[in-house]
Amino acid sequence: MARALQFPLAVSLGDPAGIGPEVIAKCWDSREALGLPQFVAIGDARSVAAVWDGPIEVVENPREADAAFDYGLPLIQINAPESDVPGHPSVAGAHTSLDSLELAVGLARSGSASAVVTGPVAKEQLYAIGFSHPGQTEFVAERCGISPGNVVMMLAGPTLRTVPVTTHLPLHLVASHLNSALIESRGRAALRGLQRNFGIAEPRLAISGLNPHAGEGGQLGREEIEIIEPAIAALAAEGWRVTGPHPADTMFHARARANYDAALCMYHDQALIPIKALHFEEAVNVTLGLPIVRTAPDHGTAFDIAGQDRADPRPMAAAMRMAAENAMLRAETA
Amino acid sequence: MARALQFPLAVSLGDPAGIGPEVIAKCWDSREALGLPQFVAIGDARSVAAVWDGPIEVVENPREADAAFDYGLPLIQINAPESDVPGHPSVAGAHTSLDSLELAVGLARSGSASAVVTGPVAKEQLYAIGFSHPGQTEFVAERCGISPGNVVMMLAGPTLRTVPVTTHLPLHLVASHLNSALIESRGRAALRGLQRNFGIAEPRLAISGLNPHAGEGGQLGREEIEIIEPAIAALAAEGWRVTGPHPADTMFHARARANYDAALCMYHDQALIPIKALHFEEAVNVTLGLPIVRTAPDHGTAFDIAGQDRADPRPMAAAMRMAAENAMLRAETA
Repeated sequence: MARALQFPLAVSLGDPAGIGPEVIAKCWDSREALGLPQFVAIGDARSVAAVWDGPIEVVENPREADAAFDYGLPLIQINAPESDVPGHPSVAGAHTSLDSLELAVGLARSGSASAVVTGPVAKEQLYAIGFSHPGQTEFVAERCGISPGNVVMMLAGPTLRTVPVTTHLPLHLVASHLNSALIESRGRAALRGLQRNFGIAEPRLAISGLNPHAGEGGQLGREEIEIIEPAIAALAAEGWRVTGPHPADTMFHARARANYDAALCMYHDQALIPIKALHFEEAVNVTLGLPIVRTAPDHGTAFDIAGQDRADPRPMAAAMRMAAENAMLRAETA
Repeated sequence: MARALQFPLAVSLGDPAGIGPEVIAKCWDSREALGLPQFVAIGDARSVAAVWDGPIEVVENPREADAAFDYGLPLIQINAPESDVPGHPSVAGAHTSLDSLELAVGLARSGSASAVVTGPVAKEQLYAIGFSHPGQTEFVAERCGISPGNVVMMLAGPTLRTVPVTTHLPLHLVASHLNSALIESRGRAALRGLQRNFGIAEPRLAISGLNPHAGEGGQLGREEIEIIEPAIAALAAEGWRVTGPHPADTMFHARARANYDAALCMYHDQALIPIKALHFEEAVNVTLGLPIVRTAPDHGTAFDIAGQDRADPRPMAAAMRMAAENAMLRAETA
């Protein structure tokens, strides 16, 4: 299957001082064992050489990467003014990571790469160079001409996919940020994403409650009645297969998971606790709602362990495999 | 091990119209396969006979139950004015369930039973007969002469134990109900419970954050800095092994779980999502802080499936096994 991709994946290294270069190089090293498709790394070759002794094949474009893949890690060089030390992020490194991301997205947009997989970036450094997006997701959306409000983050593992309606909010603000329109639009994006990226013709979406026991009929909160149920009714009226509001604590065990293709959750930890409890090494961040396929491993730069040969390549490998699968399913249904 | 208990467990049937009678009878049926210790059921024999064809041995006390256990389900009869129909709770049934609970606790208090395991009750019906406690836990605490504020609910499964600091609150009220003193007292009760019930001499408690990424240094909420960290410091100053505040999404995967004996969580779903995602059929509700051992399966009366032979006895069996283990560990360390 891995070889069936027409073009390689474009994989940005992320911050050169983070664990991105290391896990991507390790992925190439174990490409057979990890079942990986062909890919081309995009970033500064020096950041890979600083943490890895294997062969690097600097190439000009994804086509060359295909031929080089058996001999070394194919890499499109992003020239950086200086080389970063692992674990020590810099403003120069932020420029490199942003240029890498930009090129990776461009290659996927133009059809030279099958999908984009993004290595972890350091937001603080990006902000220091004028980056004004909350994260890579919003940047990719903008470059694709999509409003960030119309893309959603899905966390996908082997037996569970979750989509948070709200993300980086203090918990006490979650309830006041929820409204039916937001739940509907996130739900719709999730459902369309299940069709486009996962090839599920009639996707089933389970929608969580906000409160314990999904509010227990209004006894433990009224958001289910006033906000979530109307959103579910609206989605159902459009013909989507939606259920809920489900008590969040009883919707993630194996038997419950068999009843839906994705769970729409009201807040960050409601979506991320179950996916990481069940699939820590295999949870992939998938951006839905884009004209291209974009995935990412669900971890950060991990500066504290960068350059120590301690980073686990499995999350990055899972992100690459899912990008390839999503891209092929899209190609089939296009 | 199961046979090493000096006295049987006292198991209240819970609401006679719920699934309690069925799962307890099924437990006796499969006592060998499920690895169960000796126990005596307490409730109305008619509620068992209505859903199960096996032999019932009506006994007067736990000592007789020991001798009868090989021949039938030993049961101490609670006389009820009328017999309930499965799936149709009544006020009479609420009286029966309350009397059963009262006797079960009394037997454990007097030392005639090794521990109490409680079947699921119908709170609405209990409230109708004047029951004024939030649940069975608080009732048991009162009967044991313990302030409900000093007992905590632990959800315990094979690889994870969690304790919620707050429980049945609408989500938007959680933040305002948290304070350092509450976290400290819940933490202390959890730590002492790990010592007394689980035989862990130097228990390790991981304490969660409230907000995404545990607040990310104050960027996503300040409760970690203002409320949780001081509580952790206070517990550490008493010599307890406590860590945190941990981001809730990354504290429940296998490698993280290996670092602690229990997780103290800030709210209901934060504690219950991971335990039920990982251990749905084996999660046991253990009340810590009591002079007796009390456990319960982590499910309700399930009136919708009562009397249909569909109820799964595994959660009740897990509650019985854990009650026996806890009771033996207490006896050893007493």
